[in-house]
Amino acid sequence: MPDPASASDKDMNILFIMYDQLRFDYLSCAGHPHLDTPNFDRVAARGVRFTNAYVQSPICGASRMSFYTGRYTSSHGAQWNGFPLRVGEQTLGDHLRRIGMDCWLLGKTHMKADAEGMARLGLSPDSEIGARQAECGFDSWIRDDGLWGEGPDGFYDEKRSPYNEYLKSKGYPSENPWSDFANAGIDENGDIASGWMFKNADKPANIREEDSETPWLTQRAIEFIDQAKGRWCAHVSFIKPHWPYIVPAPYHAMYGANHVPQAVRSDVEREDPQPVYGAYMENKIAQAFQREDVRQKVIPAYMGLIKQCDDQLGVLLDHLEATGRMDSTMIVLTSDHGDYLGDHWLGEKDLFHDPSVKIPMIIYDPRGEADATRGTTCDVLVESIDLAATFVEFAGGRVPDHIIEGRSLLPWLEGRTPEWRDFAISEYDYSATPQAVKLGVEPRDARLFMVFDGRFKLIHAEGGFRPMLFDLQEDPQEFHDLAKGTAHAAEIDRLYGYLAQWGRRLSQRVTRSEDDIKTMRGRSGRKGILPFLVDGSEVPEELTEKIRGTAPKRYVGG
Amino acid sequence: MPDPASASDKDMNILFIMYDQLRFDYLSCAGHPHLDTPNFDRVAARGVRFTNAYVQSPICGASRMSFYTGRYTSSHGAQWNGFPLRVGEQTLGDHLRRIGMDCWLLGKTHMKADAEGMARLGLSPDSEIGARQAECGFDSWIRDDGLWGEGPDGFYDEKRSPYNEYLKSKGYPSENPWSDFANAGIDENGDIASGWMFKNADKPANIREEDSETPWLTQRAIEFIDQAKGRWCAHVSFIKPHWPYIVPAPYHAMYGANHVPQAVRSDVEREDPQPVYGAYMENKIAQAFQREDVRQKVIPAYMGLIKQCDDQLGVLLDHLEATGRMDSTMIVLTSDHGDYLGDHWLGEKDLFHDPSVKIPMIIYDPRGEADATRGTTCDVLVESIDLAATFVEFAGGRVPDHIIEGRSLLPWLEGRTPEWRDFAISEYDYSATPQAVKLGVEPRDARLFMVFDGRFKLIHAEGGFRPMLFDLQEDPQEFHDLAKGTAHAAEIDRLYGYLAQWGRRLSQRVTRSEDDIKTMRGRSGRKGILPFLVDGSEVPEELTEKIRGTAPKRYVGG
Repeated sequence: MPDPASASDKDMNILFIMYDQLRFDYLSCAGHPHLDTPNFDRVAARGVRFTNAYVQSPICGASRMSFYTGRYTSSHGAQWNGFPLRVGEQTLGDHLRRIGMDCWLLGKTHMKADAEGMARLGLSPDSEIGARQAECGFDSWIRDDGLWGEGPDGFYDEKRSPYNEYLKSKGYPSENPWSDFANAGIDENGDIASGWMFKNADKPANIREEDSETPWLTQRAIEFIDQAKGRWCAHVSFIKPHWPYIVPAPYHAMYGANHVPQAVRSDVEREDPQPVYGAYMENKIAQAFQREDVRQKVIPAYMGLIKQCDDQLGVLLDHLEATGRMDSTMIVLTSDHGDYLGDHWLGEKDLFHDPSVKIPMIIYDPRGEADATRGTTCDVLVESIDLAATFVEFAGGRVPDHIIEGRSLLPWLEGRTPEWRDFAISEYDYSATPQAVKLGVEPRDARLFMVFDGRFKLIHAEGGFRPMLFDLQEDPQEFHDLAKGTAHAAEIDRLYGYLAQWGRRLSQRVTRSEDDIKTMRGRSGRKGILPFLVDGSEVPEELTEKIRGTAPKRYVGG
Repeated sequence: MPDPASASDKDMNILFIMYDQLRFDYLSCAGHPHLDTPNFDRVAARGVRFTNAYVQSPICGASRMSFYTGRYTSSHGAQWNGFPLRVGEQTLGDHLRRIGMDCWLLGKTHMKADAEGMARLGLSPDSEIGARQAECGFDSWIRDDGLWGEGPDGFYDEKRSPYNEYLKSKGYPSENPWSDFANAGIDENGDIASGWMFKNADKPANIREEDSETPWLTQRAIEFIDQAKGRWCAHVSFIKPHWPYIVPAPYHAMYGANHVPQAVRSDVEREDPQPVYGAYMENKIAQAFQREDVRQKVIPAYMGLIKQCDDQLGVLLDHLEATGRMDSTMIVLTSDHGDYLGDHWLGEKDLFHDPSVKIPMIIYDPRGEADATRGTTCDVLVESIDLAATFVEFAGGRVPDHIIEGRSLLPWLEGRTPEWRDFAISEYDYSATPQAVKLGVEPRDARLFMVFDGRFKLIHAEGGFRPMLFDLQEDPQEFHDLAKGTAHAAEIDRLYGYLAQWGRRLSQRVTRSEDDIKTMRGRSGRKGILPFLVDGSEVPEELTEKIRGTAPKRYVGG
């Protein structure tokens, strides 16, 4: 039923913008010392910036499936990149279309279709239902996952690349211009200098800036918005600032070594590290980011990519303003996870230190109800699954809380203070990684869980490894693993209690809502199920009328 | 891949016989003092009787969905009667057909189709795929759930009843002969004496014995077996000895008050009972079974129903022997849960005392590998979900342990002693019951969990109620709730640790097997994903060949 404080009666839309691997703290509104992002700040100034937002998993695919289903990774099951989302799992598209809002995809999802499950149910990928199943519930305006790497075993992503086709149409002479131009420079010999190699990160990508990935998708978004009819949610999902770390001119030259923050790491972290953390510290990307020369080449490129994202966000915002859409469009800016960039001796994401698991989360809500909170920050514990609930409520629906495990953020946007969660959960499944091989862990045991209560962060590891504990109040840099000692046993027990409570959560009773169940209560008696009658006097006559019948023929003696 | 010790290369079949609400201890092989069940004993003498077998939920629907999926109720989500099994959830039928064994249903499943989910995926119930989805993965030979009660709001079960149609074809003059004849006697005035009323339990059902439910389904089973081609699993699922408690002559007169065991109950149980238990003790059926006159009328009828089941089992076994099928047919005898019959001041099932949650589990394995264990008992902790795994392995398949959570019992049948579980879990969702209303519990909090380690049984209740603890070694009758005191805090903590471990289990990663994941390990590098290269020297040249390319046209200065 529509919520009066919702957008149901207006023609409100949702622009759900996701960046890939954007750290929470690489924005000027989040306090970055050198990076100026006036357009992110512009949305923050008109909305709310949530300063404690966490992803359900610090890895693209699993995290995105949680954004799109509103469910924890252990609930939807697509717990790592390339693990298909099981057929029938409901998504934003299912929930929003049910209440009259279209749900479109532009860009990346990292969704892998459950081809086996679809075949088992006879769903053709060509059918509308099959196509939505294969695209994570979205109608696909243009999908490009933006990772067109190719090796001896072929392409990482075997789908077609609309972006590569665009580049070819623009005359870039290559079978894979994404690899040869958009993500490569030119070396001193005039040869391709691949963006996969950090030594090339300071070179300009050999592509016209307007043809690079971020402007390309921004233009597709503008085209979508200009033609869109009815109420829509558009997931505009950029691949950048995700690696390969290389950016076209002029962004390649905007930042230098003098803008690279010191790595947040301490020798104490390398003393007898928890084994899974230790294995990650020794992997190739961690070893690369432990080199200062690498950080000084890569981070300026990463900053340049973010600066380009900010400029293109400006283009999009200007277009919304010019076309009078700012008062009818909710704008969300977030990311699927962060990037260690050498912090904690690590590269990439994967683990649960804030640079990896904490994300930017800025929401502009155009409704008058949200005027009171414009330009403020909110430090409650937000989980990425909260967006699905927020969108459903914003679109005028009632959150199906037997399916969506997140909670609507609208109350916070309206300046109210609802009862809220005591802890946030994040999970990481490293079963397919070299670290699992190195540690000799079976796939089912290669799983990590984070429990964060706003101050203490516990990391539990299956497979018999010890946990980790950080006190972010006393040790905001997360250097000191308090689980090594015994002094914090009580905190560890308390957080394990939260994890156990979460483990008992109701996550699969998805075919009956709380209201359905309340309606069922006691109904069976009125449908003739009376297993408690001694002589019938226990219940009103109407319940037994049908079983009293009339005089029957006698079939047996007795 | 086929297991040499399996039936894959022979023409082995599975006869999976389930009784409804049959207590584990109402068989002579299980030590019942008055009930003689030579045919159950006959299977036990040729197979293994598992003496510690537990259902995943002591309620028909949820328990059966666990038998059929091999998954805990919190994993498949159909946690109570009438909660549909979500579309796409895999069942025995999916797993067995995949390895060349048909999977047929004869009788009751209590399955409710996920009509909304099927519609969402465009599955027609008329299609083969749709029909299997609607029948819990079985091909339906004949389905009859055997509860044709009718009240002011209509029938409890709105499907057609093949059994009622059979009775009508036999000339029983009624629109609902199940209610008016099969489950009713005749009173002193010649009127219908409904089996719903316990006062009528000692009357003979007004039906020819051969037309009553158990013989009727037994004949359908024989018809099925005689025509079956190829390898099959047949789920022959009887409604009896489930209520209504009334049985045709001569069974109605075989047992009397002198054969009724004393109720296993103690006044100490009524002193400050755990609140959920307390609410159940006060419900209508409990109050009825607290009356000795009710027990003395109902239990002889219940015993008569079991005796009839045993005689009909004899008919079926004789037919298998006469047709030479005993050496090619695995026979399983079990039940979906027990029946309190007044024990612990309760009627029906629902809670976790042994009379409710423990089941008979007798398995005859015709293979020579099982000769060593014939006529033995096995006291390891068995869960009902183990049957699905057992059947897949018996049929020559490899158990898909990323989907099926149970474990194959074949090693035990072969006299081996595999590493085994430390605890059994059972769950009960009472969200739709009057007890939840009485206790003022929201649907999501009306859930109970049992953890049993073979000696201590912990019952955890969501919703803030205190737990219960029983020591079955010191208190086999489960009278003394040790959670009331503080003396057993350590045991309670230990069992809560098991529950927490279970809560973190891997249950939804169903689209990737353990082997799939091992195959994925490290593969992305060979598909062009190289986010760790400083200069390329880190990896063999073949990995970087595709990104080195050839001299490109210069698009931008740098």
